[in-house]
Amino acid sequence: MKIKVINPNTTLEMTEGIEHAAKSAARPDTQILAVSPKMGPISIESYYDEYLSIPGVIEEIIKGEKEGVDAYVIACYGDPGLQAAREVTDKPVVGIAEASLYLASMLAARFSVVTVLPRIKTMLEELVDSYGMSRRVVNIRTTPLSVLDFEKDPERGMKMLEEEGEKAVSEDNAEAILLGCAGMADFADKLEEKLGVPVIDGVVAGVKFAESIVDLGKKTSKLKTYKYPEKKEYTGLLDTFGDQAAVK
Amino acid sequence: MKIKVINPNTTLEMTEGIEHAAKSAARPDTQILAVSPKMGPISIESYYDEYLSIPGVIEEIIKGEKEGVDAYVIACYGDPGLQAAREVTDKPVVGIAEASLYLASMLAARFSVVTVLPRIKTMLEELVDSYGMSRRVVNIRTTPLSVLDFEKDPERGMKMLEEEGEKAVSEDNAEAILLGCAGMADFADKLEEKLGVPVIDGVVAGVKFAESIVDLGKKTSKLKTYKYPEKKEYTGLLDTFGDQAAVK
Amino acid sequence: MKIKVINPNTTLEMTEGIEHAAKSAARPDTQILAVSPKMGPISIESYYDEYLSIPGVIEEIIKGEKEGVDAYVIACYGDPGLQAAREVTDKPVVGIAEASLYLASMLAARFSVVTVLPRIKTMLEELVDSYGMSRRVVNIRTTPLSVLDFEKDPERGMKMLEEEGEKAVSEDNAEAILLGCAGMADFADKLEEKLGVPVIDGVVAGVKFAESIVDLGKKTSKLKTYKYPEKKEYTGLLDTFGDQAAVK
Amino acid sequence: MKIKVINPNTTLEMTEGIEHAAKSAARPDTQILAVSPKMGPISIESYYDEYLSIPGVIEEIIKGEKEGVDAYVIACYGDPGLQAAREVTDKPVVGIAEASLYLASMLAARFSVVTVLPRIKTMLEELVDSYGMSRRVVNIRTTPLSVLDFEKDPERGMKMLEEEGEKAVSEDNAEAILLGCAGMADFADKLEEKLGVPVIDGVVAGVKFAESIVDLGKKTSKLKTYKYPEKKEYTGLLDTFGDQAAVK
Amino acid sequence: MKIKVINPNTTLEMTEGIEHAAKSAARPDTQILAVSPKMGPISIESYYDEYLSIPGVIEEIIKGEKEGVDAYVIACYGDPGLQAAREVTDKPVVGIAEASLYLASMLAARFSVVTVLPRIKTMLEELVDSYGMSRRVVNIRTTPLSVLDFEKDPERGMKMLEEEGEKAVSEDNAEAILLGCAGMADFADKLEEKLGVPVIDGVVAGVKFAESIVDLGKKTSKLKTYKYPEKKEYTGLLDTFGDQAAVK
Amino acid sequence: MKIKVINPNTTLEMTEGIEHAAKSAARPDTQILAVSPKMGPISIESYYDEYLSIPGVIEEIIKGEKEGVDAYVIACYGDPGLQAAREVTDKPVVGIAEASLYLASMLAARFSVVTVLPRIKTMLEELVDSYGMSRRVVNIRTTPLSVLDFEKDPERGMKMLEEEGEKAVSEDNAEAILLGCAGMADFADKLEEKLGVPVIDGVVAGVKFAESIVDLGKKTSKLKTYKYPEKKEYTGLLDTFGDQAAVK
Repeated sequence: MKIKVINPNTTLEMTEGIEHAAKSAARPDTQILAVSPKMGPISIESYYDEYLSIPGVIEEIIKGEKEGVDAYVIACYGDPGLQAAREVTDKPVVGIAEASLYLASMLAARFSVVTVLPRIKTMLEELVDSYGMSRRVVNIRTTPLSVLDFEKDPERGMKMLEEEGEKAVSEDNAEAILLGCAGMADFADKLEEKLGVPVIDGVVAGVKFAESIVDLGKKTSKLKTYKYPEKKEYTGLLDTFGDQAAVK
Repeated sequence: MKIKVINPNTTLEMTEGIEHAAKSAARPDTQILAVSPKMGPISIESYYDEYLSIPGVIEEIIKGEKEGVDAYVIACYGDPGLQAAREVTDKPVVGIAEASLYLASMLAARFSVVTVLPRIKTMLEELVDSYGMSRRVVNIRTTPLSVLDFEKDPERGMKMLEEEGEKAVSEDNAEAILLGCAGMADFADKLEEKLGVPVIDGVVAGVKFAESIVDLGKKTSKLKTYKYPEKKEYTGLLDTFGDQAAVK
Repeated sequence: MKIKVINPNTTLEMTEGIEHAAKSAARPDTQILAVSPKMGPISIESYYDEYLSIPGVIEEIIKGEKEGVDAYVIACYGDPGLQAAREVTDKPVVGIAEASLYLASMLAARFSVVTVLPRIKTMLEELVDSYGMSRRVVNIRTTPLSVLDFEKDPERGMKMLEEEGEKAVSEDNAEAILLGCAGMADFADKLEEKLGVPVIDGVVAGVKFAESIVDLGKKTSKLKTYKYPEKKEYTGLLDTFGDQAAVK
Repeated sequence: MKIKVINPNTTLEMTEGIEHAAKSAARPDTQILAVSPKMGPISIESYYDEYLSIPGVIEEIIKGEKEGVDAYVIACYGDPGLQAAREVTDKPVVGIAEASLYLASMLAARFSVVTVLPRIKTMLEELVDSYGMSRRVVNIRTTPLSVLDFEKDPERGMKMLEEEGEKAVSEDNAEAILLGCAGMADFADKLEEKLGVPVIDGVVAGVKFAESIVDLGKKTSKLKTYKYPEKKEYTGLLDTFGDQAAVK
Repeated sequence: MKIKVINPNTTLEMTEGIEHAAKSAARPDTQILAVSPKMGPISIESYYDEYLSIPGVIEEIIKGEKEGVDAYVIACYGDPGLQAAREVTDKPVVGIAEASLYLASMLAARFSVVTVLPRIKTMLEELVDSYGMSRRVVNIRTTPLSVLDFEKDPERGMKMLEEEGEKAVSEDNAEAILLGCAGMADFADKLEEKLGVPVIDGVVAGVKFAESIVDLGKKTSKLKTYKYPEKKEYTGLLDTFGDQAAVK
Repeated sequence: MKIKVINPNTTLEMTEGIEHAAKSAARPDTQILAVSPKMGPISIESYYDEYLSIPGVIEEIIKGEKEGVDAYVIACYGDPGLQAAREVTDKPVVGIAEASLYLASMLAARFSVVTVLPRIKTMLEELVDSYGMSRRVVNIRTTPLSVLDFEKDPERGMKMLEEEGEKAVSEDNAEAILLGCAGMADFADKLEEKLGVPVIDGVVAGVKFAESIVDLGKKTSKLKTYKYPEKKEYTGLLDTFGDQAAVK
C-alpha cells in the first residue's frame, strides 16, 4: 500500500525527519511517500501560515490521486485543510492531531499537549474542542521555541520538551504527553523514557491509522459533507484549482 | 471612515450586491470599498472552496493596510480566514456569520439559519458552535440551491427562502431567521415582511459593527493569538506572502 | 435617534458618569437619555440587589415607550431584567454585559472580566455561560472594592483594576479585559494604555450596538419568548404593573 | 418543624391547592405555612411576571425569619428569586423546579417537562441548563393553557396534560413526566396512573427535600455567593428592602 | 419503612460506621438495614474494585426484594452499579454521590469534593460530569490516604480532610465540601465546625432522599432504560444471576 | 503478535463470529485469540448484564498476561470494564465502541449508531458522550431485536439494520453507520453496499487499532488513573480477584 505523508510546510529537512518517522512506523510492505507542497510557508506558527499552507496540501492530495496513493496523512499538528482534503479524494485522510488524540485516549485518561510558540495555544484549544477532547486534554503547554528552532537546536528543543513534560505530569496530572508539532517525532522515545508516561507523536499514529483504514477497505463518506467539490471557475494564482481531475 | 468589505468569491455581480447592501446600511460619512480577491473560486460551497478563498481574502486585507482602511468585513457566511485576517492587521475585522449571530442574540431568544446547499450544514454547525451559539441556533436549514442559483434566479431563491423560513418558524420555533449567504442580503426585507420575525443579513450587521468598533477606537488585540505573523520564507505560487508589509 | 440608557441603581452620580460615557460614544445625532429608576438599590452587588432593581428598570422601559425612545441600554454588568425588558417593548434592548462580550469576541480570542466584590463571581460565571462565552472568558477577577468604592475613591479603584488586569494578562493569558461594572467606564482608556490590550467598557459598546440596530431598522422578535406580557391583575406595591400601556 | 411554602403569585385559590399538596406530603409533625406575597402578579407566564414576583417572594422569606421558619419552598416552576432568597436567610430554600429535576433523576434516565403556555419554553430550557440537566430533559412540552386556565377548567387541563404526556412517552422517549407548574399538583396521581411512568410534582418534592435538609441540620453556605446582602439605601416603592432585618 | 443501606465493600467495621451515620439521620420509624455484600473487595479505590463490587451490590438489592425493603442506598462514592440496581427493583435506589451533589446544590453555588487516593480523581470527574454537575464542582481534591487508612487512623484522616478542606475554601472558592467516601461520615460535623461551610456526607443525604421518595410513593420508571433485565442464562461463578426472582 | 479478543458474553457461536471477523481484519502474522469468559450472561442488553459481564472480562485479561498477549480488544458495544481492564495490564486495551467512533470520525462528519433493543439507548448515549462524540453522533437507532435474535435469524436482522440504516441516512443525515453490537460484524459489507455510506464494525476497527498500538510499542499509562490495582482482600465468589498476579 502507498501512503502519502504531506508535511504542509516547505522545509525539506523537516519532511525528511517526518519521512524517517513514518517509515519507522510503517509496515515493510507500506510505501511511504513523504512530500512538501510546492507552495507555502517554511513553517506553520499562526493562522496565517496555516491557512496559506492549505492550497499546497490540497494540491498534493489531488496529485496523489494520479500517483496511486491509498491513504494520506497530513503531518502538521493543526491538521490544516483536513476537511477539504477529504472532499477531493475518497481515500482516507488522517490528520496527525486527531490521530494523536485518539491514540492517547486509548492509553491514558488525561493528557497534555506540548507544542511550539505560545501564540498557537488558542488554535490548538479550538482544535481539541472540535474533536470532542476538551475533557481529556488537561493542558496545552507551549515553549518559547519556533518550529525551526527544534530543527536547528534539537538539544535545546529536547530540554524544553522535558521541562514542560515534567510540569505536565506533576502540575497538570497528565498521564500522557502529546507532541504538538510534526517536527518533534524524534524526541518521542527519549522523552517517554525520561517521563515514564506514554509520549505520543502524531506522525506515527497517523501512519498506523491510515494503514488500518486501508486494510479495512474503508473510504471517506461521499454522501454530504465530504462530497467532491462542485466544478467551478477559479481565477488568478489559484486558477488551476477549478479544473482539477478530483473536482467532480 | 473607510470600511473594506471583502466578498471572498470572485463573482463581481455578487460583490456589487454586497456593496449595495453595505452602502444601504453604512452611515453617510462611511466609505464602503467592496472588492473581490484577485484569486479564488466564483462561489464558496465546500471546505475546498472556503480554504482556497482565504489567500485572496488575506491579500485584500494586506492591501487594505496601504489603502487607509479603518475596518474590514469578510462577507461570506463561513467567515473564511477571519482569524488570519486579525493577525495581519490591528484594525477590526468582522465576519458576517459572527455579526449575524451576535445581532440575532440581541433580538431573539432562538433562531435558525437558512442557507444554500445541504453539504455546508456541518460546516455551519461547527462554526456556530465555535461562537458559543449552539444553544440559540435551533436549526440550520439548507435549500437545493447553490450560491449562484440565488444570483441567477432570485425569484426561485426567494420562494425557497420563504419555504424554509416558514418551516423554521413553525417547526423549529425559530424567532428570527439568519440568512446564511452574503448573496441573500436583498431578500431580507421581503422575507421579514412575509414571516413576521426579524430576518438578519450578516453583511449589514457586519458593516454596522465595524463602524461601531472604529467609532470606539478599538483595535484587535496583538498580545498573543492575533499577533502579527512572524516573517518567514514562502515559496511557489504564494511566495509573496512571506514578505508582506503586514508581516512583522 | 433617542437611546435611553438605564442605570439600574439609584446613585445619580453614577448615572451621570454613565451618561458621560454614553455621550462620548454616541453619534452627534443620537440623543442619550440617561436615567436611574425611581425605586431600587443604590448599588447592585448581590442577587438580592439585582432582582430588586428589575421593577425599576422595567418601569423605565415602559415609560420610554411614551418618550419616543428608539432603543434601550441596561447599564449594569448583570444585565438585570434584560429578557423582561425585551417583552415590554419591540424596540431593541441591549445589556452591557452581552455587548461587551460580543465586542470583545471580535477583538480578542480569550479575555477576562475584572469586577467588584468576590460574591458576584458566580453570578457573572452563570451570565457568561448563558451567553455561550464560557470558552472565551478565561477568568472573572474580583476586587475587594464595592461599586460605590469605585465612585468614592477612583484612584484606589484604578490601582485595583490595574493590579487585576495585569494578573489577567500574565496569569490568565487574557488578550483583552472587560470591565465588569457600569461605573468603571472612566478607567477604560487609562487601563488600556497601561496594559497594552483592549479594555472594553460595556456602556459604550451597548450604545454603539443599540445605534446599529436602530439604523438597521431591526426590532425585537415578538413571536414567542419575547411576546408582550399578558394583561393581568397585579396587587400591592407593584399593582401598577398589571395595567401598563406596554402590556398587551 | 415549620416549612413556609411561598406561592409567588397572588392567586389564593392556587395557594390553597399548593398548601393542600404540601400538607399531603409533609410529615405529621411538619407545620406547613402556605402563603402568597402581598404584591405581584396573579400568575407567572413571562419573564416580566417572573421578575415582578420576586420582591414579594423575598419579602415573604424575610418575614419568615421572624416567624420561626425552618425552611422555605418557592412554589413556582421558574424558581423565581431562588438565589436572592438564599442570600437573605441561612435556612435552606428549595425551588420546586430544581427539586423535581433532582427527584426525577433518581427515578428515571430521561424525562420531559409538561407545562403551560409556549412562551415559557425558552425560560425553562435555560433553567434546566443552569441545573446541569439538559442531557436528561429530552423535551419541554407546552400546552395552549395558561396557569389560571388549569385552575378554572381542571378537566380540560387534565386532558391537555394527558395528551402531551402521552406524546412525551411515545415521541420523546421520556421515562418520567415533570409537571411544569405549581398549580398542577392535583393532576399528578391521575396522570401517573394513565401514563404508567412516574409523574413528578415539584411542590411535594420540594417539601420533602426541605424536611430532609432541616433534619440533617444543614444550612445555606454564607461564605461567598449566598452571603447576606450588604446593608444599603433603597428608594421609592421598594425602600423598605434597604433596612430589612435579614440584611447584614 | 425499611431502607437497606449497602456498603459495597466487605469491611464490616466500615459498614457499622455507615449504619451508625444512617441511623443518626433516619427518622425514628425508619428501619435501617446496613449490609456488606457476601463477595467483593474490602475497599474500593480503582475501577477494578468498583466493577468487582457490583455483583455483590446487585445481589443485595435482589435479596432486598424478599426482605420487604422500601428503598436502597448504595453507600460508596462511585455509586457502583446504580443503574443496574434500578433495573432489578422498582423501589427507589439512591447513590450517595448523586445524593450529596443534589443536596449541596441546594445549599451552595460552588463546591469541592475531598476524597481518598489520587487515582480515583478521574473516576469522580466522570461521575460528576454524568450528573451534570461539572460547572458546580470546582475541584476534586485527593489525599494520600486509602479508604482503610481513614478507618485505622481517624485522627490523621481528620487532619488530611481539614488540610484539603481549607485549601478547597481558600484556593478553589468552594462554598461547601463534599466528603468523597462513605467512610468519612463521622468527620462531617467536626469538619463543618472547623471550615465554617456546609460539609456534606452522602450517606445521610442518601437516607433522607430515600425516605422522601418512599413517603411520596414514587418508584423507579420501568418504561425503558430501567426495565427489569430480560431472563437469560448466566454461567460460571455468576450463574445464579440468570435466575433471580427480580429478573423478569 | 498475539491479540486477545474478548467477547464479554458467553454465547460461543457469537464468539466464533467475532473471531472470524477479527481474523479477516488481522494481518497474517497477527494471532487472534477469541474467547468468552468463564462466567457471565449469554448476551448483554442491560446495565445488569453489562456489569455482570465485567468480572469475566477482567479475568480473561488477567489470564492473558500469562498467555503472552500483546493487546486486548473488548468486543461488546458497551465497552464493559474497559477502564478496569486498563488497570490490570500495561498492554493496550481497546473497546469496540471507542474504536468504531474514532474510525468513523476519520471517515465521516456525522454518523448514527444502529443497535439492538430500545432499552440500551440511554446507555449508549452516555457512552458516546463520555468519548466526547455527542456532536458527531446524530442518532442512536434501536431495533426490536435482541442480540441473540441477530444470531438466530440473520435475515431478519439484516432487514432491520437496512431499514434503520436507511432512515439514519435520510432522516438523521448520517454519513456513516456504526454497528452497535459485536454480533453484527457479518452484516457490515452488505449493508455498506446497500446504503452507499461507510458501515463501521467495531470488532475489525478494534483489532486494527490494537495492532497499530502494538506496532508503535505503546503501552497503557500506569501513572495514576490506570495504575495497577492495590493488592487487597476479596471475599466470597470473587475471592480470587484479590490475589491476581496482575494486582500489584
